[in-house]
Amino acid sequence: MYEGAIQDLIDELGRLPGVGPKSAQRIAFHLLQVDTADASRLADAITRVKQTVRFCARCHNVSEQELCRVCRDDRRTPELLCVVEESRDVVAIERTREFRGRYHVLGGAISPLDGIGPDDLHVADLFDRISAEGVVEVILATNPNMEGEATASHLSRQLAERTGVRVTRLASGLPVGGDLDYADEVTLGRAFAGRRDVG
Amino acid sequence: MYEGAIQDLIDELGRLPGVGPKSAQRIAFHLLQVDTADASRLADAITRVKQTVRFCARCHNVSEQELCRVCRDDRRTPELLCVVEESRDVVAIERTREFRGRYHVLGGAISPLDGIGPDDLHVADLFDRISAEGVVEVILATNPNMEGEATASHLSRQLAERTGVRVTRLASGLPVGGDLDYADEVTLGRAFAGRRDVG
Repeated sequence: MYEGAIQDLIDELGRLPGVGPKSAQRIAFHLLQVDTADASRLADAITRVKQTVRFCARCHNVSEQELCRVCRDDRRTPELLCVVEESRDVVAIERTREFRGRYHVLGGAISPLDGIGPDDLHVADLFDRISAEGVVEVILATNPNMEGEATASHLSRQLAERTGVRVTRLASGLPVGGDLDYADEVTLGRAFAGRRDVG
Repeated sequence: MYEGAIQDLIDELGRLPGVGPKSAQRIAFHLLQVDTADASRLADAITRVKQTVRFCARCHNVSEQELCRVCRDDRRTPELLCVVEESRDVVAIERTREFRGRYHVLGGAISPLDGIGPDDLHVADLFDRISAEGVVEVILATNPNMEGEATASHLSRQLAERTGVRVTRLASGLPVGGDLDYADEVTLGRAFAGRRDVG
């Protein structure tokens, strides 16, 4: 409906995840109205991310160098290895400041419906790392959904068969600050099963 | 939380309207994963929109030439002039294929709370156009909200004082395909006030 360049921009924006046609139009007009410098900063940031960002040679986390920030940090213990699906999960866990080990980013989760098996993920070199880095405990921090659980149970079986490391999974239960009657029944059931002595 | 280029991109995306921190992160990782060619097309579209798009010298609609597509079209009658707030309203009206006149894009609406008065909008040259182009009817198609109504009532007063043109406003009423009991009371009230003989 628009002339050339605006329609092209609306089309490109509409391809982004979570951006519908109305949002694409709104963002395009926003960019049309801001200073050229502001719009250029966005265009440059897109170009630069493709030029400079790659993946850590050790853990597959996003990185601008051969090794990512976590892997470059000598104070992190190699004995604890936390397995996550995506780089954004690394950021979420780092934000808690609870974990002082290293990560292994799988690059997704096992999902037979989408045709994604263990061979499509960074699973093979996970086993290489366990022996090479002297890992003592593997923490499976895949998402608490169907794909994440399938991935965790596949990995825990394989780890038990092929290694002697301790394998743990993040606790399921009630979210802190939430209301009990808002929790779904699966979460509440897990919270019961995982209940702890407090006396 | 991320290294250099990714964090820059997340920050820039987060400045766009309707894009929160989570969406910005999701879009950034999406761009990281797509082909460089796809990401470049978006970066180029942003750059190109700032280079090539300007505003129509006659009606202030977005355009890539001196005059916009509507103003360049000789088959459009200059006698009907439709006043809208933004270029996207032109597109919405064009989509109906009901209107064969020209537009005048105000560039916003009168909003005392935001400090926007008639002098901040393209109001002065609206009056120039009415005499220069031989306009017979001005259709006030500003939004049916507080700012749009204030703008329409200001313009209708001024038009009555300073010109002899017919001034009309788009009908308010029930949206086609909607349920009567879902309509808010103001809309339903307007629908009553604007009822028409069908017998």
